[in-house]
Amino acid sequence: MLVNGKSYRTIWLDPEDDKVFRTIDQRYLPFEFRVEELKSIEDVFYAIRDMHLRGAPLIGAAASAGIYLSLFNLPGSDDPFEYLEQKAAYLKSARPTAVNLAMAVDRQLKILSGINTRDEMILKAKQEWQRLADEEILNCRKIGEFAFPLIERISQEKDGLPVNILTHCNAGWLACIDYGTATAPVYLAHETDIPVHVWVSETRPRLQGARLTCWELREQGVPYTLVTDNAAGYLMQNKLVDMVLVGSDRTALNGDVANKIGTYLKAIAAKDNGIPFYVALPSSSIDFKIQSGKDIPIEERDENEVRFVEGLVRGKPSRARIAPLHSMAYNPAFDVTPAHLITGLVTERGICQANKEGLMGLFPDMVSGKE
Amino acid sequence: MLVNGKSYRTIWLDPEDDKVFRTIDQRYLPFEFRVEELKSIEDVFYAIRDMHLRGAPLIGAAASAGIYLSLFNLPGSDDPFEYLEQKAAYLKSARPTAVNLAMAVDRQLKILSGINTRDEMILKAKQEWQRLADEEILNCRKIGEFAFPLIERISQEKDGLPVNILTHCNAGWLACIDYGTATAPVYLAHETDIPVHVWVSETRPRLQGARLTCWELREQGVPYTLVTDNAAGYLMQNKLVDMVLVGSDRTALNGDVANKIGTYLKAIAAKDNGIPFYVALPSSSIDFKIQSGKDIPIEERDENEVRFVEGLVRGKPSRARIAPLHSMAYNPAFDVTPAHLITGLVTERGICQANKEGLMGLFPDMVSGKE
Repeated sequence: MLVNGKSYRTIWLDPEDDKVFRTIDQRYLPFEFRVEELKSIEDVFYAIRDMHLRGAPLIGAAASAGIYLSLFNLPGSDDPFEYLEQKAAYLKSARPTAVNLAMAVDRQLKILSGINTRDEMILKAKQEWQRLADEEILNCRKIGEFAFPLIERISQEKDGLPVNILTHCNAGWLACIDYGTATAPVYLAHETDIPVHVWVSETRPRLQGARLTCWELREQGVPYTLVTDNAAGYLMQNKLVDMVLVGSDRTALNGDVANKIGTYLKAIAAKDNGIPFYVALPSSSIDFKIQSGKDIPIEERDENEVRFVEGLVRGKPSRARIAPLHSMAYNPAFDVTPAHLITGLVTERGICQANKEGLMGLFPDMVSGKE
Repeated sequence: MLVNGKSYRTIWLDPEDDKVFRTIDQRYLPFEFRVEELKSIEDVFYAIRDMHLRGAPLIGAAASAGIYLSLFNLPGSDDPFEYLEQKAAYLKSARPTAVNLAMAVDRQLKILSGINTRDEMILKAKQEWQRLADEEILNCRKIGEFAFPLIERISQEKDGLPVNILTHCNAGWLACIDYGTATAPVYLAHETDIPVHVWVSETRPRLQGARLTCWELREQGVPYTLVTDNAAGYLMQNKLVDMVLVGSDRTALNGDVANKIGTYLKAIAAKDNGIPFYVALPSSSIDFKIQSGKDIPIEERDENEVRFVEGLVRGKPSRARIAPLHSMAYNPAFDVTPAHLITGLVTERGICQANKEGLMGLFPDMVSGKE
C-alpha cells in the first residue's frame, strides 16, 4: 500500500542481498516512518517479541524469514534438524497467541526435512518464504473481494451515504504484507468510489488503532474518525455504525476468535444493537487443531504498557505515566469472542458461519483432526 | 476521606472567610495535590466546565456554592431574581449531563425566592449549601451501608477470598463530597476487614479511573489493579470479577442510567457473564422528570481529549499526541446503560430494581410528574 504515495509492503527481502530483510519498524509510527534491517533469527525474534512488527499474518511471514536467516549459521558438524528445531522453539516463544507464528515455522521445517545440503536448504527456505508472503498477499486480496459485497449492499441500502465501519486495533496492511484483512474490502470500496468512513477504536494499551490504523487509512485517503475504546457502544446505540469488521490472531475450529483485547466488548455491543459483526481472517490464522477458543493461549504483556501511554510530547516520542507510582496493573493482550456473536468469518475462500460446519465447508482439506 | 493520612472533603467553605470555597483541583491528581480557591460564580463555572472538579454530586455542591457566591455581587437596584435567573442559566450551561447541576441551582433559587434582603439571602444560601453538602455526605454513607451486604454476601460465598469489584471512571469520594457512591461500600468493607480488591478501568479519554480512582483507593489502603477499558470483558469471561459497581451522572425514571462513556459496554459484558451490575446513586442524580435515558443530553467534549493523553513525562504534566496530526476525532463523554442490564440501583433509601416501580417505591415523594 501507499506511504507518501509510494508503494510498500511490510516486509521484503533485499533484492541485492538475500541475507537481509527489511521491515517497517511500527513502533515509530505514525510519527516517523522507519525501516529496520533483519539480518538474523535473533533480529526477527526481538522484532516479533517487542512488536517492531505485529499482526498475525506479518508475524508468520517474519517467522518464516527468521528460519531462513538461521540457515546461514547452520553448523556444519551437528544434525541440522536438531539445530532447526531449537531455532523453531526459540522463535515460537516470542509471542503465544497468533497461530501464524507456529504455522509459518512448521511449514519451513517441513519443507526443509529431507534436504541434505545447506545451499539447497537456503534455496528452498527462500522459496517457501516468498510463497508464504505471496499467499498472504493474495489471501488478503481475496478477503477484500469476498467482503466487498457486504459493504456494497449497505451502501445501496443507504442510497450511497457513507458506510460506517467500526474496526479495532490494526487489521490493516501493517498487520499483513499488503492490503490487510479487515481493511482490504474498505480499500476496495474506496477505490471503486463507494463512500466509506471508518471509526477507529484507539486500542489501548498500545494504541494500534490510533497510531497505525489512522496512519494507514490517511495514507490511502480513506476518511476515518478516531474514538476511544469506550465509545464503541455509544456509536452503535446511536446508529452510527453499519458494520463491525475486525481481524483475528487465532480462530478455533468452532469459530471462536481470539483478537486484540476489547474485541469481545465490541462483539456483544454489536449483537445488542443488531449490527453485523464480521471477522476477516486468512486461513493461516485458523488453528484447525483446537476445538474452541478456550484452548487459545492469551498473552499477558508488561504491566507498564497499562501504567504508561506512548505518544509524541514536544516533538519527541515519550512515555507518559497515567497512574500513581507503583500502581498494580494487569495487561492481557487478547480476548476471545465466542462464535455465536460473529455474523460471519471472511476468508480467502469465501464467507462462512462462525462454526465448525462453516469452516469445514470452506476448508475440507485443512480439517484433518478428529474430535 | 484520607489524603496523606489527613481527613479531607472535596469542597469546603473557609471557616475564616465565608466568601471563599476551597476545592481539590483534580486536574493535577495523582501527581500533585493542589487546593484551589473559588471566590466567584465565574470561578465555579470554569471549575465545573474545565473539570477542576467533576462527579455528579460534587458538581451539584459546587453549583450551589456558585449561586451563594453570586449573591455578594447582587446589584442593589435591579430585580434580584432576574439577576439570579441569569446566573442560574449561566451555571447550568457549564455541563449538560449531570442533573445535579440544575437540581442544586434550582434548590437555591427556590430557597431564595420571597426573601428580600441581601444579607438574609446570603445567610439562607449558605445554609442551603451546607445542607446540600451534608445531605450528599449522609447519602453516600447510606449508599455504602445499603450496598455493603452485597459485598459481605459474596465474601461469605467465597469463604473470605477477596471480593473483586470492577468499577469505571471515578465514583469515589472525589466525585462527591466524601465517601463516594460506588466506593462507599468498598471503604466500609475494607474498614470491617472484609477483603476486597478493585479492578480500576482506566477510563479514556480523561483517565479518571487511572488518575483519580487509583489515587483515592491507594490513599485509603484498598487493594486495586489498573486495567485498560478494553480488559473488562476478558476479566469477566475469566471469572475475575464478582460484581460491577459504578456511579451515575443522571438516572431516568425508567431506571436507564447515563454514566461515563464505556459504562454500557461493561453492563452488557456483565449481563453476558452473569455478573451482578449495580449502580450507586444518590437521589440528587435521579431526574424524576424524564421518562427514559433517551431524553438525557449527552455531552460532547473537545476532540483533543481523544487525540492526546495527559500524563507525567519526566516529572512534568504533559500531553502526548497518540494519532497522526489533524486526525478527525469524536468525543461523546457519556453513554446510557438501559435499565434491563442493571441488577439494582443502590440509593440512600435502599436498593431497588432499575425501573419506575422500583424508584417510585423508594421515592414516592419525589415522583410527582405524570406520564
